[in-house]
Amino acid sequence: MTDTTAPTQPEMDGPDPVLLKDIADAVDERDTRWLSRTLKRMHPADAADALETLPYDIFEDAVELLGEDLPSEILIELRDAYREGAVEMLTDEAVAQALDELDSDDATTILEDLEDDRRERILEDLAPVDRAELERSLAYEEDSAGRLMQTEFVAVPEFWTVGETIDYTRGRGEDLPETFYEIYVVDPAHRLLGIVQLSALMRQPREVALEDIMEDPMTTLTPDLDQEEVAFRFQKYSLASAPVTDTAGRLVGMITVDDMVDVIQEEHAEDLLALSNVSSADASDTVFDTVRARLPWLGVNLATAFVSASVISVFEATIEEIVALAILMPVVASTAGNAGSQGLAVAVRAIATRQLEGAAARRAVLREILTALFNGLMIGSCVGLIAFIWFRDVHLSGVIAIAMLGTFLWSGLVGTLVPLTLKRLGADPAVASSVFVLTTTDVIAFFTFLGLASIVLL
Amino acid sequence: MTDTTAPTQPEMDGPDPVLLKDIADAVDERDTRWLSRTLKRMHPADAADALETLPYDIFEDAVELLGEDLPSEILIELRDAYREGAVEMLTDEAVAQALDELDSDDATTILEDLEDDRRERILEDLAPVDRAELERSLAYEEDSAGRLMQTEFVAVPEFWTVGETIDYTRGRGEDLPETFYEIYVVDPAHRLLGIVQLSALMRQPREVALEDIMEDPMTTLTPDLDQEEVAFRFQKYSLASAPVTDTAGRLVGMITVDDMVDVIQEEHAEDLLALSNVSSADASDTVFDTVRARLPWLGVNLATAFVSASVISVFEATIEEIVALAILMPVVASTAGNAGSQGLAVAVRAIATRQLEGAAARRAVLREILTALFNGLMIGSCVGLIAFIWFRDVHLSGVIAIAMLGTFLWSGLVGTLVPLTLKRLGADPAVASSVFVLTTTDVIAFFTFLGLASIVLL
Repeated sequence: MTDTTAPTQPEMDGPDPVLLKDIADAVDERDTRWLSRTLKRMHPADAADALETLPYDIFEDAVELLGEDLPSEILIELRDAYREGAVEMLTDEAVAQALDELDSDDATTILEDLEDDRRERILEDLAPVDRAELERSLAYEEDSAGRLMQTEFVAVPEFWTVGETIDYTRGRGEDLPETFYEIYVVDPAHRLLGIVQLSALMRQPREVALEDIMEDPMTTLTPDLDQEEVAFRFQKYSLASAPVTDTAGRLVGMITVDDMVDVIQEEHAEDLLALSNVSSADASDTVFDTVRARLPWLGVNLATAFVSASVISVFEATIEEIVALAILMPVVASTAGNAGSQGLAVAVRAIATRQLEGAAARRAVLREILTALFNGLMIGSCVGLIAFIWFRDVHLSGVIAIAMLGTFLWSGLVGTLVPLTLKRLGADPAVASSVFVLTTTDVIAFFTFLGLASIVLL
Repeated sequence: MTDTTAPTQPEMDGPDPVLLKDIADAVDERDTRWLSRTLKRMHPADAADALETLPYDIFEDAVELLGEDLPSEILIELRDAYREGAVEMLTDEAVAQALDELDSDDATTILEDLEDDRRERILEDLAPVDRAELERSLAYEEDSAGRLMQTEFVAVPEFWTVGETIDYTRGRGEDLPETFYEIYVVDPAHRLLGIVQLSALMRQPREVALEDIMEDPMTTLTPDLDQEEVAFRFQKYSLASAPVTDTAGRLVGMITVDDMVDVIQEEHAEDLLALSNVSSADASDTVFDTVRARLPWLGVNLATAFVSASVISVFEATIEEIVALAILMPVVASTAGNAGSQGLAVAVRAIATRQLEGAAARRAVLREILTALFNGLMIGSCVGLIAFIWFRDVHLSGVIAIAMLGTFLWSGLVGTLVPLTLKRLGADPAVASSVFVLTTTDVIAFFTFLGLASIVLL
């Protein structure tokens, strides 16, 4: 029996240090043969991992040494920054060769990295058919289904049988996409009629006609569809691959789930970073990249912090009178700000997973307000009590409790409404939401607390 | 040609309102036949969507009305809260029937929701073989590969040919898993020898032996492996499905990519919510659920806010003297706190995608410190300048600039070190990191700013 109670799990610790040392030595000794043979024996994803784990200058030396012997499957597995670096070092011929070997979606990824004139030069080196296909892919907008799809797929006429289909795929190993999960049935004008999953094909006798077993596509993907929408549909319908058709219903490409998993990761990273006011981040970022991705947002935050400061300065005289206000005011702002971030994270998350549409959005706003009311009452009374114990002033204690409740209600309201509104306006709900929610919460916090204090306590 | 320039994209707007109205009417009129026929004609994911969009009491009525006519494929597509509600309303017989129809991983999901005695009762209704299989799945820990895997897969002996394999799958449509992408080659003791992708099988002549075309598994998955690790490997190796083997190398199950996409979504949601101090969130949460998921964290935050307040109170006399300090101190705290959140989000993200291992972690810490140094210098001088223009006091201006720089350095350091340390200790790097980073940043901000001010300005 399997041991199901083993408490700890060996983590994947990345590439074997001994192997890394051997690779570094081989690069140092310029032993191209050993290096190329070793890398080819590994899974391309593992080989890419190993190369990325080397110090960057050794990575560069390795790429230079290998040149066109660097397998294209490893090249495409490298993280963006490394792949771009490698492509820059390779000769035009080596890049053209890689493009020729890769499926068209991967080839497009590499072409995207190139500068315009180099891309032109390299495209000219390719066979006219390949070139036309890649140019068509590049014509689609970035982050669209058209860019993600590959133009290699298996399409057969509807009058074929299961047997004929298998005979066909048997005959043309090299022309087929490297991996495929389904077969597309098309009419003479190449319009998509239906889909036959390989696992469905395998259940059928040879003589069965494809048109009798084909299924309707679960969803229609067009090349201009945004990648986020495509990924959402892959998840919803549990797809491993899906056909892409043009507006006339003609089959133009195929998207596979591995690319969608990458899209999902990418979109999540964007949301998480945007909520924390970071424009972009990658493990290979330099200090300069990092500063560029963060300093502008810090500048925005600084501006809003001075808005809060000017609100406080309005009550300068009151604070001079009662220093306890200066001690307590960050408590109001920070706790209510925390409540606002909570609501914001939940809303951004729910919008990303399409859980906040129509009636659900209204329900969510109401729920957030009621939650804010309850949490504001609880936290407000706690703060009031602590303030009373500390300063022995029942008025001060009442003022801070009421200010907290008011600020909670505000942050509950904007935490959900702001991302929903941004979404409705077609903007990214994560970007800028957090600045707006936190700034206005701070302003409301300082204004109600210090304002009430001026009225009640002076 | 496809129109690639279409600027707007029709969004998926959820289920058709007319259809929803018809469904609600059918429930009202207790028209079981129409309801059942309509739902069966839809894709299960769409049918589940439609049911979830109804008001909850109509959803309940629909489930009650349908009873065992509620297709099990729709049941499994419902979101957790709805599925649990539906299962609660169904009779034991209806649940047993659904378990019988579903693949074992989906059946396990439904069993997980049941209370112990009901689960026992329903398991007793099942065929002994099915029952044993499901009980074995349930014996694995939650969120493990054992729970996620299905025990339906296609395994054949290594001496079979391509032709024999196809003949075998042709003969047993019902016994095969609903969808599969690869065939497992096993020895007589059921140990996994290799994998043949269906698309590889389709390229080969009938007479080729499987052992000549089978590939090594890219990665070994055992039932006790954590789901996050499994999802990571699916992404790394671009898998559509993968075999699960026990410690003796025997094939025990198969995991498919659709479940891994769900895991990735789940893990991302956890990180995002944890960073904002929310324990859990779902669109169907009640106000009570929401309060329970947030109030404890607000309590923690409140406690830390009072730590900051007590730091401020140490400098009460200084603030009484110079009220400008009270006005400016939130600027120091909020801007440095923002810098800390930035670093934290980047670190949590990089840890989740395994980009912070070994040397990469040390590089990241160094990069964060240098970034904090640079951003601290820039923002610190800005703040110093603004403070000077506002208050015309060069000493105050110098004090705030230095305090900001110091606080930035601290937040840059802990923003990366805290999640890395939590990870190393085996804890979730997202949970608690943000409380620690923001609290200590606040404390350092108030302490350095007010402390320096006391020394320099008084």
